Amino acid sequence: MKRKNAIVGQSGGPTAAINATLAGLIRAALAADGIDLLYGMQHGIEGLLEGNTVVLNTLFSDSEKINLLAQTPAAALGSCRRKLPDPHGETCVFEQLFAIFEEYEIGYFFYIGGNDSMDTIQKLSEYAEAHDIHDICFIGVPKTIDNDLVMTDHTPGYGSSAKYIATSVAEIVRDCAVYTVPAVTIVEIMGRDAGWLTASAALAGRICGQGVDYIYLPEADFSDARLFEDIEKALAVHPNVVIAVSEGLRYADGIYVGEAGQNGVFDAFGHRYLSGVGKVLEQKIRDRFGCKVRSVEINILQRCAAHLLSATDIHESLQTGANAVCAALSGESGVMICMRRKSGALYQTEFFCAPVRQIANKIRKVPAEYQNKQKNQVTEDCMDYMLPLIQGEFPLCWKNGLPVHFVLK
Amino acid sequence: MKRKNAIVGQSGGPTAAINATLAGLIRAALAADGIDLLYGMQHGIEGLLEGNTVVLNTLFSDSEKINLLAQTPAAALGSCRRKLPDPHGETCVFEQLFAIFEEYEIGYFFYIGGNDSMDTIQKLSEYAEAHDIHDICFIGVPKTIDNDLVMTDHTPGYGSSAKYIATSVAEIVRDCAVYTVPAVTIVEIMGRDAGWLTASAALAGRICGQGVDYIYLPEADFSDARLFEDIEKALAVHPNVVIAVSEGLRYADGIYVGEAGQNGVFDAFGHRYLSGVGKVLEQKIRDRFGCKVRSVEINILQRCAAHLLSATDIHESLQTGANAVCAALSGESGVMICMRRKSGALYQTEFFCAPVRQIANKIRKVPAEYQNKQKNQVTEDCMDYMLPLIQGEFPLCWKNGLPVHFVLK
Repeated sequence: MKRKNAIVGQSGGPTAAINATLAGLIRAALAADGIDLLYGMQHGIEGLLEGNTVVLNTLFSDSEKINLLAQTPAAALGSCRRKLPDPHGETCVFEQLFAIFEEYEIGYFFYIGGNDSMDTIQKLSEYAEAHDIHDICFIGVPKTIDNDLVMTDHTPGYGSSAKYIATSVAEIVRDCAVYTVPAVTIVEIMGRDAGWLTASAALAGRICGQGVDYIYLPEADFSDARLFEDIEKALAVHPNVVIAVSEGLRYADGIYVGEAGQNGVFDAFGHRYLSGVGKVLEQKIRDRFGCKVRSVEINILQRCAAHLLSATDIHESLQTGANAVCAALSGESGVMICMRRKSGALYQTEFFCAPVRQIANKIRKVPAEYQNKQKNQVTEDCMDYMLPLIQGEFPLCWKNGLPVHFVLK
Repeated sequence: MKRKNAIVGQSGGPTAAINATLAGLIRAALAADGIDLLYGMQHGIEGLLEGNTVVLNTLFSDSEKINLLAQTPAAALGSCRRKLPDPHGETCVFEQLFAIFEEYEIGYFFYIGGNDSMDTIQKLSEYAEAHDIHDICFIGVPKTIDNDLVMTDHTPGYGSSAKYIATSVAEIVRDCAVYTVPAVTIVEIMGRDAGWLTASAALAGRICGQGVDYIYLPEADFSDARLFEDIEKALAVHPNVVIAVSEGLRYADGIYVGEAGQNGVFDAFGHRYLSGVGKVLEQKIRDRFGCKVRSVEINILQRCAAHLLSATDIHESLQTGANAVCAALSGESGVMICMRRKSGALYQTEFFCAPVRQIANKIRKVPAEYQNKQKNQVTEDCMDYMLPLIQGEFPLCWKNGLPVHFVLK
């Protein structure tokens, strides 16, 4: 087999596991016969367009560094949110990119990211196909805490975030339980369109059986009136009501609940920039019930809290990276690495490739059967789906009382 | 020695270590010859006044439960914020309390809490002295994440919060480093009058040398103009500026920076209810620099994140509880258990008792020499003071992928 060079980039929002996927990919690529140099693009394709690359072979010749990389949060190579244009329209940027590929003698292109990164893989594949370029494999490598990619059972990164959210929510529930004064605590959790992260708050109930009172996902239309009814019921039973809400809650007319606290900023992919549903509901509940109300926005900690990693998630992330290299070497292109659960009582996953055109720009939401009829809790089936993903505590390397991070200088 | 009964309560804001102190106290009291029954007051003196108590001897006959208690965040016995009146004035509530002590045959009264709880110990001692009651020992047992009690080198609970803050801030710094677009991230940290918690953000720099750009403590007058100057300088060097601010920042005229976002609510002790300095500064920086600005409020997670405990802190918390029992049995009263560092290169502490009248209602602030001249960073001396307190990771008992909590039913 002719040896070719490979390049890998990270894109989209950082997660606590995206570097583990990179670590698995580096380890496999450095050991692979068919790969000569492995380049890293710094800040995704945006950096690549500026020639901002680094040779990973020398940087990670010491395997200890790969281990540190696996426990480091956020994207070590840097990230970007650059959206490529239609490859059949304005092709200037594609010509630039493919010239760089030629210059670097790239045979394998890996992009680790979520929905928007799969859009990049899809467009690069389409452009290559339309221009009869067959000597580069484009492989999408999934990561997203949102767990919203279709075709795959779940996404690397989700398990660690879910473990952090479930643990933090359980701790918040304990914190709220100390006083006897009626109070409502709102925990605001990420998830613009899919409620997977918010759903993981339900797992807190598995710690001594005390979890949140209600969980509201973006999949169901939100209603202030029903929220007030729910809270009234809960306050009648105990004074410390805790609810988990998704940042993406919308009313039946499509208006975001958090919009009242917003100034209508959109990101490069046209997604509305959200935050503030907790603060908006805090005021509404205070006005209605006159009791103590507070909101806790878990914020970016839920995506970067690498001090509490799910061992299952990190092992799968490492394997996802390794499987990306295998897929590339076997000639796959325009695909994303997916996981499916094997049948049987024991949780086990296997990897496969799915065409990225079936994945890009699609969103896998929490299915209706994972929510109860009142749309204020998740079902046992949903718990059974999530629970295996948070199992195990990934052992970390500590120094001076703090976890050690790998930093690319 | 005649066996007497003892009673213990928890008061004030919950912490991740207050139950470890309780666990140490229970273990010592159950093993002590001089103590017969150990009662727990539920929700502090407020619960005690309603006869809301529980016998801890039977509840914790299984030592495994004491271990679980030590790793459980928040106050397992419940808390309250009840302020006692002047014991030389309105004495009705004191008569009630001392009648209860007589009924329960209490010889030792332990109150685990912060500044306000030491006020309770002080007033109970004063009342007893004024009324020639000499058969009850009143012992203050310190806990506060704020680390603001005088006489003691530091307080149980601070080390674990500092470890969580330093780790989380390091993760936030990594998260912020992934993009190239100029951005300012504000991390809002607890601490109304003392900046110890905010100062711990500096320890993040010990993880790979990359920490926050600036740290603003409530001990120094805050100035928007100087903040803008600082940020301008930092943005000239790198695009991802991260600053740590205390919730208690004030301008030279005494006005809280966070007050703009507040509605002037006060708690039972007359402390102004604060939150929102992050949001207020976020808007000001956005208006000034026009760049991306976000604020992360670590919120109650910094006081209840028991999944990341400092082993040093938990061991000292356990010892503090045990020392409270020793002090009581040796006849001390109206005192608080304090720690001092032994001299020498190796970090070691020893315990002693200090009169609670020298402690109650006083605040130990971060000394001026722990801040740099510009009042936007802490010094190496400050780092050296904090670093031993976050050492070691306390091993937890996990189940179903989550840490197990002890819950008093």
